Amino acid sequence: MTYDNVPKRPVALLGLGDMGTALARTWLAAGYPLTVWNRTPAKAAALACEGAVVAASPADAVAAADLVVLCLLDDASVGQTLEGVDVSGKDLVDLTTGTPGEGRERAAWAAARGARFTDGGIMGTPVMMGVPASGAYVFYSGSRALFDAHRAALEVPAGARFVGEDPGHAALYDVALLSAMYGMFAGISHAFALIEAEDIAPKDLAPLLSEWLGAMGFFVDNVAERLTSRDFTTGVVSNLAMQVAAAPTLLRTAAEQGVGTELLAPYLDLMRRRLDADRQARSGEDTTGAITLLTRQVVSSSPVRDQR
Amino acid sequence: MTYDNVPKRPVALLGLGDMGTALARTWLAAGYPLTVWNRTPAKAAALACEGAVVAASPADAVAAADLVVLCLLDDASVGQTLEGVDVSGKDLVDLTTGTPGEGRERAAWAAARGARFTDGGIMGTPVMMGVPASGAYVFYSGSRALFDAHRAALEVPAGARFVGEDPGHAALYDVALLSAMYGMFAGISHAFALIEAEDIAPKDLAPLLSEWLGAMGFFVDNVAERLTSRDFTTGVVSNLAMQVAAAPTLLRTAAEQGVGTELLAPYLDLMRRRLDADRQARSGEDTTGAITLLTRQVVSSSPVRDQR
Ligand SMILES: NC(=O)c1ccc[n+]([C@@H]2O[C@H](COP(=O)([O-])OP(=O)(O)OC[C@H]3O[C@@H](n4cnc5c(N)ncnc54)[C@H](OP(=O)(O)O)[C@@H]3O)[C@@H](O)[C@H]2O)c1
Ligand SMILES: NC(=O)c1ccc[n+]([C@@H]2O[C@H](COP(=O)([O-])OP(=O)(O)OC[C@H]3O[C@@H](n4cnc5c(N)ncnc54)[C@H](OP(=O)(O)O)[C@@H]3O)[C@@H](O)[C@H]2O)c1
Repeated sequence: MTYDNVPKRPVALLGLGDMGTALARTWLAAGYPLTVWNRTPAKAAALACEGAVVAASPADAVAAADLVVLCLLDDASVGQTLEGVDVSGKDLVDLTTGTPGEGRERAAWAAARGARFTDGGIMGTPVMMGVPASGAYVFYSGSRALFDAHRAALEVPAGARFVGEDPGHAALYDVALLSAMYGMFAGISHAFALIEAEDIAPKDLAPLLSEWLGAMGFFVDNVAERLTSRDFTTGVVSNLAMQVAAAPTLLRTAAEQGVGTELLAPYLDLMRRRLDADRQARSGEDTTGAITLLTRQVVSSSPVRDQR
Repeated sequence: MTYDNVPKRPVALLGLGDMGTALARTWLAAGYPLTVWNRTPAKAAALACEGAVVAASPADAVAAADLVVLCLLDDASVGQTLEGVDVSGKDLVDLTTGTPGEGRERAAWAAARGARFTDGGIMGTPVMMGVPASGAYVFYSGSRALFDAHRAALEVPAGARFVGEDPGHAALYDVALLSAMYGMFAGISHAFALIEAEDIAPKDLAPLLSEWLGAMGFFVDNVAERLTSRDFTTGVVSNLAMQVAAAPTLLRTAAEQGVGTELLAPYLDLMRRRLDADRQARSGEDTTGAITLLTRQVVSSSPVRDQR
């Protein structure tokens, strides 16, 4: 084990909720000197028995290590916790969930105080930490130098994937994946709702549904390809006109089965609007173009990026 | 090839649109005597050269074979086409897309006219017909006797999956899978929309997204399990309270990125409503319970199936 020859530099961890506590245990298990702090001190007691040093204040915790990991409720609690604390010369890794904008602002905040900053987005749950087979990992973005300097420590709880120097990108990847997951969950939910009143066992539908969604997963690469080439028509197997024509059957089936269409209708509507705006040119597209109707809704402060 | 020893009984096919034409070619290629009819006769010309007999009327086509396959635009066109045609003693296989209700009504219509009836829902596109490696298949439901009698012929264009004697179930499985797919497409669309304005190549997001959705696909079996046991809390890794608490970050990120939330918000809202109705009991659930809020919207003619 060459790993044991790597000197283990101290880690400071602020925040001992479910996730922070799980992270702490992995660093202790891996032999890292660990200093912890939590607003409610009681949560640190068990970790103290396991070898963690419990700091009396955020400032004491920050002073104990170059690498300072934050795992608090939200970005506001990070601001409150580090208020007035000297972080100059420190390497801050913020595993608190936030938006890309919060990541960027926190990075600017850290830079103004002389700290390096890397944001992180955890793709996993507390029970997955320290279990490589769980597949859990963390998106990191911001200071590459920080990430490289502490990579060994950062890889202890879960896989580490660096996604760029923009400190907002870790949160962006995190949110993009979670958002896509909820879309898939919504589709699955609608499918099971459709059979609820029928003499069909959910376990009879499940394998067919899994197989189908797996087969349709090609859409991800398809979209990436078309958004890059901006060619929405070459090699289309199921064209937009046909899919829009078939949509009412899906909606009428929901109505027949007494199932609400709030999860289904918005995407069908987006397909229809994409087609209707230029039926001639778009009949032969696939459904990728519907994405342009989502991004059209730019916030008022942003320039309109594309005339569609 | 034992297959060649099976006597090939005639097939009649009504409807030569893209799909009907593709089906026809597979039966011709497999050596089935084929009689075709199409409202617009010109579409039958090429098939005539390939060996199909072209019937002058729907009645002539129906008279030419015991197995009569319908592949028309919609159920209304099936009714119009077969109006006044003697179908007694025939085996009708309806591959026209429709709702479960239409399948059931068409089955009753056929029974009243002395025909056996099996409905079909094609999970594939015309180019996939006759190509086993495409993975395309057809859901069948209705008369099992009909299905068994004609199984060899039905398996020529694509795989054949019989899903029960209820003539509405083929359409129901078909629509359930397509609806779930659109949910997944919606989620994927939202994810790519989030990065549109960023310096992130769609092809950098794609593999991460595919991997993540694959890993989260466990939700299908999870839902089937919980809908069967009606136990929404045992073995939950990410609980509902935490997911509802995290939802605003997803919505705020969409706002920051100038992306509309119409594809994302409805499911998050359903999760929140599920939790809010009984926070005490439901904090520890996963998100399966959100399905009960969809099926609550029963049509007025149906009895309320569940008090939630
Ligand atoms: N749990 C997961 O599955 C998971 C997965 C991915 C990402 N995350 C992220 O990881 C972070 C922590 O999650 P968690 O599950 O550990 O949450 P949690 O169990 O609710 O713990 C929240 C932590 O934040 C602290 N806190 C809250 N407000 C504070 C304030 N104003 N000042 C100082 N400390 C404050 C709490 O301290 P007290 O003990 O004093 O209340 C506690 O240590 C969150 O951003 C979450 O989104 C969690
Ligand atoms: N294409 C696919 O990818 C696909 C996939 C799965 C399921 N399906 C289903 O397969 C069925 C046929 O699809 P398709 O792609 O072949 O459609 P299509 O190319 O639009 O062809 C429609 C067919 O219906 C006929 N038709 C329309 N109205 C009629 C009427 N009132 N009376 C008699 N015939 C009428 C048309 O005859 P004319 O030639 O005279 O217009 C034509 O033969 C549909 O139910 C579709 O949902 C298609």
